[in-house]
Amino acid sequence: MSIGPNPVETMMAADVASRSLGIELIESGDGHAHTRMVIGEHMVNGHGIAHGGLIFSLADTAFACACNSWGPPTVGAGADIVFVAPTRVGDVLDAHARVRTRYSRHGIYDVTVRTAGGVIAEFRGRSVQLPETRV
Amino acid sequence: MSIGPNPVETMMAADVASRSLGIELIESGDGHAHTRMVIGEHMVNGHGIAHGGLIFSLADTAFACACNSWGPPTVGAGADIVFVAPTRVGDVLDAHARVRTRYSRHGIYDVTVRTAGGVIAEFRGRSVQLPETRV
Amino acid sequence: MSIGPNPVETMMAADVASRSLGIELIESGDGHAHTRMVIGEHMVNGHGIAHGGLIFSLADTAFACACNSWGPPTVGAGADIVFVAPTRVGDVLDAHARVRTRYSRHGIYDVTVRTAGGVIAEFRGRSVQLPETRV
Amino acid sequence: MSIGPNPVETMMAADVASRSLGIELIESGDGHAHTRMVIGEHMVNGHGIAHGGLIFSLADTAFACACNSWGPPTVGAGADIVFVAPTRVGDVLDAHARVRTRYSRHGIYDVTVRTAGGVIAEFRGRSVQLPETRV
Repeated sequence: MSIGPNPVETMMAADVASRSLGIELIESGDGHAHTRMVIGEHMVNGHGIAHGGLIFSLADTAFACACNSWGPPTVGAGADIVFVAPTRVGDVLDAHARVRTRYSRHGIYDVTVRTAGGVIAEFRGRSVQLPETRV
Repeated sequence: MSIGPNPVETMMAADVASRSLGIELIESGDGHAHTRMVIGEHMVNGHGIAHGGLIFSLADTAFACACNSWGPPTVGAGADIVFVAPTRVGDVLDAHARVRTRYSRHGIYDVTVRTAGGVIAEFRGRSVQLPETRV
Repeated sequence: MSIGPNPVETMMAADVASRSLGIELIESGDGHAHTRMVIGEHMVNGHGIAHGGLIFSLADTAFACACNSWGPPTVGAGADIVFVAPTRVGDVLDAHARVRTRYSRHGIYDVTVRTAGGVIAEFRGRSVQLPETRV
Repeated sequence: MSIGPNPVETMMAADVASRSLGIELIESGDGHAHTRMVIGEHMVNGHGIAHGGLIFSLADTAFACACNSWGPPTVGAGADIVFVAPTRVGDVLDAHARVRTRYSRHGIYDVTVRTAGGVIAEFRGRSVQLPETRV
């Protein structure tokens, strides 16, 4: 990484969505990132478990940090998530993202979401670097 | 559908997560549902566009309403999303979910998310009906 | 479609892989295609059912025909498949592909694979048009 | 693994589909497997590159060997594949499958397909163990 502002910190400083969801960036580096979120009372769906969209959001922010860690602005083109186990109010969720492969302007990143009890979701994101002119 | 409380309305009444995200159920029926969300100032990520997790959440709630429309409690086992176009503050997002196929305790549901400008995401959810004893 | 050689027929004439798998193009048109394959003795995996890769291949060829129906050479960037039911020797499989959405150089196509007994797989392909210079 | 016939070898001995595609099992063990295939003249699609279904098939067989390595008969419930780079006649493809997580009767397995030139596809399979009575 070049000297100068860290691209992930700059991005996260502007990411009001992640902040309003209570998503915290624990650390990031070339091709990887770690985010955390605590399941609050307002995060529960109609079955009394954490809403899948919020678990996806946590993983998606880790993915965004990992794929922007190299510098050039990069966005998610798509993602797949598997819900492994339900989570409940008070659970602390940790999402670890790691690059799997990069090619041309594209990348694939795996994100595992865990509580103290084990894996609760597996996410795979597909990224694309924005064209220079679009930045 | 049997006479008695609508399973989707009962579920949505308890879904504090969708409510706190500003997701509104417009209508639902056997195997389909329509949800809506307006992109607010607090929904923007570090690239100045709506956070992918919130778009996923809107689609996921439509999916949940569609797959629970038959009655038995059903949850998401997984999903894939493709982000077609970015959205910005003030955009009104409509998600239409529709059953594609059902087999055994499983289902596949397609959700298209649109703004006035066109499709912004395509989501495909994989559902599984909860075992009786777990309900 | 312009007058001149049909791009799908030209492509299929060169597709020795589909031919050697016994995949037949039944029809195609703008954004859709229908392929067929009969499960032979040599298509069975170690569990005595049709190999998932061959079901994927049938769907993938339908997808290729649908996404090349517009003219410009287009390839699969990725796909997701859900296996709904097993199939056995002698089963006739029909795959119907249909465009879901197109944006920029990309497309999403849904393919349903059926036997006489019902749906056996749901496939969603993500296509990308080749750059002019690469053709 | 218990003493007795290796479940993967027993399965592969009956897998005529993989054999007729020229897929070779190089090795397997608890939760992992390595398969190989050479792209032949008859494996090329209408764009002059290896048919995506055949690359999927190679990865799917590695996935099947990995998820059956534990003993109980297990099948693919679904999979996602990303095509990273095209391959051509004569290319030797190696697919390495590795378990990512297991829960209840389910599993997630990642398969990377490579040539000497690098990664050509990333596959993620979702497995389900067959019920005892169905075996």
